[in-house]
Amino acid sequence: MSKEFRIESDSLGEIKVPKDKYWGAQTQRAIQNFQIGLERDRMPIEIIRGFGILKRACAQANMDLGILDKKIGNAIIQACDEVVDGKLDEHFPLKIWQTGSGTASNMNTNEVISNRATEILGGEKGSKMVHPNNHVNMSQSSNDTFPTVQHISSVLLLESVCLPGLEVLYEQLSNKSNEFKEIVKIGRTHFQDAVPISLGQEFSAFRQQIKKSIERIKQIIPDLKELCIGGTAVGTGLNTFEGFDEMVVQEISKITKKDFVVVENKFEALSTCDALVQCSGSLNSTAVSLMKIANDIRMLASGPRCGIGEITLPANEPGSSIMPGKVNPTQNEMLTMVAAHVIGNHNTITVCGSFGQFQLNVMRPVLSSSLLHSIRIIGEGCKSFALKCVMGIEPNYEKIQKNVNNSLMLVTALNPYIGYDNGAKIAKKGFKDGLSLKEAALSLNLLTEEQYDKWMDVKKMLKPKPREKNEKNEKVNEKENEKEKEKEKEK
Amino acid sequence: MSKEFRIESDSLGEIKVPKDKYWGAQTQRAIQNFQIGLERDRMPIEIIRGFGILKRACAQANMDLGILDKKIGNAIIQACDEVVDGKLDEHFPLKIWQTGSGTASNMNTNEVISNRATEILGGEKGSKMVHPNNHVNMSQSSNDTFPTVQHISSVLLLESVCLPGLEVLYEQLSNKSNEFKEIVKIGRTHFQDAVPISLGQEFSAFRQQIKKSIERIKQIIPDLKELCIGGTAVGTGLNTFEGFDEMVVQEISKITKKDFVVVENKFEALSTCDALVQCSGSLNSTAVSLMKIANDIRMLASGPRCGIGEITLPANEPGSSIMPGKVNPTQNEMLTMVAAHVIGNHNTITVCGSFGQFQLNVMRPVLSSSLLHSIRIIGEGCKSFALKCVMGIEPNYEKIQKNVNNSLMLVTALNPYIGYDNGAKIAKKGFKDGLSLKEAALSLNLLTEEQYDKWMDVKKMLKPKPREKNEKNEKVNEKENEKEKEKEKEK
Amino acid sequence: MSKEFRIESDSLGEIKVPKDKYWGAQTQRAIQNFQIGLERDRMPIEIIRGFGILKRACAQANMDLGILDKKIGNAIIQACDEVVDGKLDEHFPLKIWQTGSGTASNMNTNEVISNRATEILGGEKGSKMVHPNNHVNMSQSSNDTFPTVQHISSVLLLESVCLPGLEVLYEQLSNKSNEFKEIVKIGRTHFQDAVPISLGQEFSAFRQQIKKSIERIKQIIPDLKELCIGGTAVGTGLNTFEGFDEMVVQEISKITKKDFVVVENKFEALSTCDALVQCSGSLNSTAVSLMKIANDIRMLASGPRCGIGEITLPANEPGSSIMPGKVNPTQNEMLTMVAAHVIGNHNTITVCGSFGQFQLNVMRPVLSSSLLHSIRIIGEGCKSFALKCVMGIEPNYEKIQKNVNNSLMLVTALNPYIGYDNGAKIAKKGFKDGLSLKEAALSLNLLTEEQYDKWMDVKKMLKPKPREKNEKNEKVNEKENEKEKEKEKEK
Amino acid sequence: MSKEFRIESDSLGEIKVPKDKYWGAQTQRAIQNFQIGLERDRMPIEIIRGFGILKRACAQANMDLGILDKKIGNAIIQACDEVVDGKLDEHFPLKIWQTGSGTASNMNTNEVISNRATEILGGEKGSKMVHPNNHVNMSQSSNDTFPTVQHISSVLLLESVCLPGLEVLYEQLSNKSNEFKEIVKIGRTHFQDAVPISLGQEFSAFRQQIKKSIERIKQIIPDLKELCIGGTAVGTGLNTFEGFDEMVVQEISKITKKDFVVVENKFEALSTCDALVQCSGSLNSTAVSLMKIANDIRMLASGPRCGIGEITLPANEPGSSIMPGKVNPTQNEMLTMVAAHVIGNHNTITVCGSFGQFQLNVMRPVLSSSLLHSIRIIGEGCKSFALKCVMGIEPNYEKIQKNVNNSLMLVTALNPYIGYDNGAKIAKKGFKDGLSLKEAALSLNLLTEEQYDKWMDVKKMLKPKPREKNEKNEKVNEKENEKEKEKEKEK
Repeated sequence: MSKEFRIESDSLGEIKVPKDKYWGAQTQRAIQNFQIGLERDRMPIEIIRGFGILKRACAQANMDLGILDKKIGNAIIQACDEVVDGKLDEHFPLKIWQTGSGTASNMNTNEVISNRATEILGGEKGSKMVHPNNHVNMSQSSNDTFPTVQHISSVLLLESVCLPGLEVLYEQLSNKSNEFKEIVKIGRTHFQDAVPISLGQEFSAFRQQIKKSIERIKQIIPDLKELCIGGTAVGTGLNTFEGFDEMVVQEISKITKKDFVVVENKFEALSTCDALVQCSGSLNSTAVSLMKIANDIRMLASGPRCGIGEITLPANEPGSSIMPGKVNPTQNEMLTMVAAHVIGNHNTITVCGSFGQFQLNVMRPVLSSSLLHSIRIIGEGCKSFALKCVMGIEPNYEKIQKNVNNSLMLVTALNPYIGYDNGAKIAKKGFKDGLSLKEAALSLNLLTEEQYDKWMDVKKMLKPKPREKNEKNEKVNEKENEKEKEKEKEK
Repeated sequence: MSKEFRIESDSLGEIKVPKDKYWGAQTQRAIQNFQIGLERDRMPIEIIRGFGILKRACAQANMDLGILDKKIGNAIIQACDEVVDGKLDEHFPLKIWQTGSGTASNMNTNEVISNRATEILGGEKGSKMVHPNNHVNMSQSSNDTFPTVQHISSVLLLESVCLPGLEVLYEQLSNKSNEFKEIVKIGRTHFQDAVPISLGQEFSAFRQQIKKSIERIKQIIPDLKELCIGGTAVGTGLNTFEGFDEMVVQEISKITKKDFVVVENKFEALSTCDALVQCSGSLNSTAVSLMKIANDIRMLASGPRCGIGEITLPANEPGSSIMPGKVNPTQNEMLTMVAAHVIGNHNTITVCGSFGQFQLNVMRPVLSSSLLHSIRIIGEGCKSFALKCVMGIEPNYEKIQKNVNNSLMLVTALNPYIGYDNGAKIAKKGFKDGLSLKEAALSLNLLTEEQYDKWMDVKKMLKPKPREKNEKNEKVNEKENEKEKEKEKEK
Repeated sequence: MSKEFRIESDSLGEIKVPKDKYWGAQTQRAIQNFQIGLERDRMPIEIIRGFGILKRACAQANMDLGILDKKIGNAIIQACDEVVDGKLDEHFPLKIWQTGSGTASNMNTNEVISNRATEILGGEKGSKMVHPNNHVNMSQSSNDTFPTVQHISSVLLLESVCLPGLEVLYEQLSNKSNEFKEIVKIGRTHFQDAVPISLGQEFSAFRQQIKKSIERIKQIIPDLKELCIGGTAVGTGLNTFEGFDEMVVQEISKITKKDFVVVENKFEALSTCDALVQCSGSLNSTAVSLMKIANDIRMLASGPRCGIGEITLPANEPGSSIMPGKVNPTQNEMLTMVAAHVIGNHNTITVCGSFGQFQLNVMRPVLSSSLLHSIRIIGEGCKSFALKCVMGIEPNYEKIQKNVNNSLMLVTALNPYIGYDNGAKIAKKGFKDGLSLKEAALSLNLLTEEQYDKWMDVKKMLKPKPREKNEKNEKVNEKENEKEKEKEKEK
Repeated sequence: MSKEFRIESDSLGEIKVPKDKYWGAQTQRAIQNFQIGLERDRMPIEIIRGFGILKRACAQANMDLGILDKKIGNAIIQACDEVVDGKLDEHFPLKIWQTGSGTASNMNTNEVISNRATEILGGEKGSKMVHPNNHVNMSQSSNDTFPTVQHISSVLLLESVCLPGLEVLYEQLSNKSNEFKEIVKIGRTHFQDAVPISLGQEFSAFRQQIKKSIERIKQIIPDLKELCIGGTAVGTGLNTFEGFDEMVVQEISKITKKDFVVVENKFEALSTCDALVQCSGSLNSTAVSLMKIANDIRMLASGPRCGIGEITLPANEPGSSIMPGKVNPTQNEMLTMVAAHVIGNHNTITVCGSFGQFQLNVMRPVLSSSLLHSIRIIGEGCKSFALKCVMGIEPNYEKIQKNVNNSLMLVTALNPYIGYDNGAKIAKKGFKDGLSLKEAALSLNLLTEEQYDKWMDVKKMLKPKPREKNEKNEKVNEKENEKEKEKEKEK
């Protein structure tokens, strides 16, 4: 950091600020008052950029209302564009560890834009030719700008990173589900062998989970598109003119090419973060879905020799620093960690949401830091998992075949013919004596080989029986005379 | 419990069962294998009743398909009705501490219905005249019945208890918001005095929170109305006939008068609890809202003499066992505890949701126990809070008036005229010297008494300024000659 | 509930109470004011019994101090004993949904004991011959009695149910660890085959987890044994006499045969639940441990034919209502559900703990309900899992042997001799060509068969190499001439 | 990043690496395979430095065992020192989004040290003169090194940042508790006026909370000081020599000046993160404590004119961008956000802890990232709060005095003399008629003015009554003839 300083002032008095930085007195105070955390704790860059968008829109509206001098207003707009373009990132040094309303970051923005706009107009930094409060923050309060920026940044990141990432994953899972449609394999419930399923059906469940995740996230976006700008300090709109809120929101919509609207009730919007909590709830559900998918896929790929091994994952890197030749499901591990983090972030966000008081929730910086983090890592994590793992999954036909042939649970298909209790006898016989299902079934004389072969068609087990062929007529009733039954059937 | 026994059997062999109970061998095994927990851990009664509905619908469909004997089928239906009507509650002794698929409770249901239907047909309990697996569980598996019942019971309880409770609260908050519309009071941000707001506006935020909560809960109901019955063991529908799923779902819709549908992807529905997790997410957001409302209201009522005391709550009971005459905000405390419990339940449900494996999630009993609990306590808690607290809230006009008159933050209204920095000087002067705002303002010669009285109109601070009366013309600019400024603007 | 009533009164006035119940006016008000929840929401019985202990101890201390009439005091003691013995359970109808200080339940206790003691003395219920506040609650407040009872009940349940349950599990895991000491099997990391380990070593990790869990729970008990009785309303001890706290705590220690002490700072004890939150933290860690153990054991038992299948669990009940002969790891599922519930309860407790204000935390009933639930289900769940699952685990020697022989990861043992990179070549060759490790190694000419057989001793892979036999002398260096290397080393 | 490249290789083949970076092939693969997250997601620097310590200790032990060439070993040690000193930070580009065992970061360390040590020996980067696996990782696996580094980094950060920060807070709270000892104020329970307490007593509760927090964190440190180095891939110590573990741990203790020990059971240490979960549990309890303290202090300071206002916090910065002169409790808001984040991190850590499988927990990078974050922000947050807020707290004598004089709850002190029911009558009378307590008491003729003044001594309400002066003799019994009572007393 620069060793040369200039003097800036605010309502508490004067303070030294690095000469080459655009920030002013209040930012400097926040730096000194909150010496907590590292780089990772900086106010998310999405918030900074969002402030650039908002301040631009407000300047435009204030000019349109005739209350902001055009020369000043246009200089503000030029400075805002630089914020949006990331040219002034280094002038936003603050952490999320600050006032809970984000006032320090609002003032950081006001000060940077004020000094940069002053410079654009030929003035000196610190001269307040463009005043941070009176001009840049005109008709605004931290209490309406910060929540507005929380919503803007969430929507932009959801639509640019999170949903696209989920869609890539949806596509890859969909491809695999189609590709694997005909591969019949053993199903598993309770971690135990169950009745058959196709590998494509198994992957269709994953696809459906992602489809629903996308829907659940999209469901919350309308609430996030409601902006509370114009509420100023407590939601009443004190110090704004009628229509200011609409004008700003229209500007924001124009800049971002999204359809933002003015929030229905500004008191609710300032005093709570409920829409953000609900958004996190949908991300939490998504995390739960991802945990299942990543876990199942790595368990199906377990082995290569001593596990389930029904599929093979791409070998992206050497798996072990000590075990040569080991390949690990690293994308899956990444995704389960993403999920765990999103679940924990959701808890942070829930606690933040429940600690608002009166006209303001003052847990905002941490809430948005956690939420934007969740949004990003879900999107980027899903994309990585889709392209580096799912896309390269290959079935191990041999292992799949061996497993499905071995399973005693195919006996379930005989229930309608011989009843549950006889089925159980066969399965137990097979398990106890190490027999194949057929051997066990025949050894107990519960049906003929011909019947066994007819009823035990694995392909048919993948869906309900057609109704035309009313199979109940073939039913074997254990309590009645079986031979007579057989005769009747032959009629 | 009865000391007389009869012998029941299942595929593991014979076992003694209390003679007067309808349950059978598998229920008895579960009792003995899981000696965990107390009364509170019993399988929720909503699940038991939901099983009654489902088993009835399945019997009907099986009869319609011609695979279930009508005499047996009708006896099953009669027994199911008794389950639904709560006549057989004592025959469902199992806890949620059992197999994670709810198999024990599915079998408990099958056994009770089987024995009761057998009795109806004149048979003896344990004779399996109506067989628990072959007849009552026909075309079903625990793996599709339990998730179906989870959805049915959630929908019924949401619509009969949770949403109605929230609507009562919405109504009461709405009433108070209207009733308090004209009461101007001090706003508070950061727990500190801020600019004015009306008490009605303050309550409108609470009303809006509940409005949104209701919407968020309703959003998830369509997913919950998707039922996976017909998927049997792994989602394929093995051992069912085509159309069975639709037939059952139509029966359920008829019985419950709700519009249930067949789930889009049964593999997803069996292997995950994602829709239930999302439902819990909406309840979690609701809990966060309730925490805010209950907290704010008790803080506004704090006192009676040494707190904020702007409202008075109804005195429902003596507040203290030691302090005579104390009245406490007990409904608020109840509601914050409800909220805390729902937040914790959400975490349980999230963990349960993330632990599915392959074709089945086996954390179902605890998940539904927690979810149904959340649904009920939100509904009943809100109703109680609405009727025993909100409805009786009275404003303390004197205290409200005193507070709003005292606040130095009204100075904010002067910003457009004298600028932020001069405003700060006035506020500090007032705070430091214990002056009223007017005294402070005039003592600093920053405006005239006439201007002060014109600009400092508390009622006008509750909304934006009308645009017609462009008040910027009156602006006091501390740095420039005002008249010259005006001329420039006119150019 | 009785349809006959008597009139009781409190400082709010008169109210009708069921004639046959001992409770009084305040309990009745709480019933009517909080119509929320079902049986599962009743104030935990451990709290009721704990109140019996505490009220007895207070009565004794008050008699010893000479401020409570002996006749009245002794009647109170007799009534308390009936509470402790569970004879009056039906007279405690209140739910946890009440005032957050537990005042309603403290008053319920005072009223029941007052009426019962009055009856013992020959008086009429409701006559207040023994007064609920002046006599039974003498020198007490809900604010010190409820927290005291929270601690007493937690300690008693931890020591009678939770720790004994964990100890049974420790013992069974310990037995299995010893029993399986010599069984060499494949280790698994990342769900992938790794280097060998013994089944006994694997179970020793589980045993160690439980050992640590027990330690972590025991660590918190001293804090829980600190009682705040004597603090009365806000911690100052207003309306008590010096020494009352010590006298009561000594009585409680005598009754419970535990070494309770007076808490160091009563203000902290009344205004927070920190010790209970920390207790829940230890239960949360325990839940995490149990999740791992239950999961691993069910995965090791997965199959029987299409999974890992290295161990077999006892078949306690038929596993499926549709798949005959299926046996599921139901005890494991129960234990993972217990763990999920404890994790969620911990979140509830954390939220409750963070919502105290000023001199009192008013989230107490829900906190203790959740905490006592966690304590009980961990204890009883572990005992069930230990006796119904762990005790009956059998190794499947054949599968274990087959797996360990098959694994390519044994190549790791060659690292010190041929280096990591050559090891990787062998493993890949084996995987690609479906060779055994030995075949792959020899086919690449990286070592002799004699060397292979010498270095590839699975039993030796279970521990570090002995230092006496400095095996580096045998090292094969792929890059240099080995003989020359040896010479250099000898220098 | 550099645009010039060199070729590095690993067991998967060759890959281009930036020429000026020390990392090798596997690091490069991880960069490319995991394009997720931003700067905030980088592997915590504490882990990198911890790896430097560990690799140094291993190199020393390997040299001492005579299996690592001294020239190579010493070059490794020199490179490690540069890692520890932060000179090579830029060569550790990896994120926490990688393999769950931390293998990528272990290999990053091995590669950087290998290339740097090669350079030190005059070789070229990429030449593997010092081999990353064979030399730097000698006798090690990611599976024992990463957990070891997790423990080392946690202990170092706890003892250098977290505990010192808490101790600063303890000291400041302790100072205030002493300073405010004599200031009698109103106590508050349920947010309602209660009986008196001193401001020093109130702060003593905060002090005690921090004292206990420190104890609870210290309690877990012995477990964290247990290191599992020497376990290699699965805990058996394959490819190490006997005693290696002890030698490494002694080196680490020497370097860090802490008393680390070899863990009791390496299988448990590799396969779980239980000790870290328990550590997080203690941080969670601490967060709960901080939430209470920060909340109470800001509520006590609420106002300045329309709140409780019993204390004043230092004005560190202008509070509002719109409300001039506003001062907000920003340090308190920071601390409550820290607490919320720690609570959420605890949930992440709990989920991570519960997802280990078999011989390894593969959620490690996220777990440690969250844990180290919690450790740091608690320490730095507490220090900031202590010095920027607590140290500057001033009591508002006037407001405190006014409140305590006003409260009707002082009536509690009359309980022993006139009974609870009469006390309630007085309090209600006062509340209803707006009387002072004395006026109300006398107007009801329940005691004489002399008695009132004698019994109503606020200072005496701060502690129990002395036993010598047995005040029960003065008791007024409402049920007996009062005059006779008075006569008896006079005897």
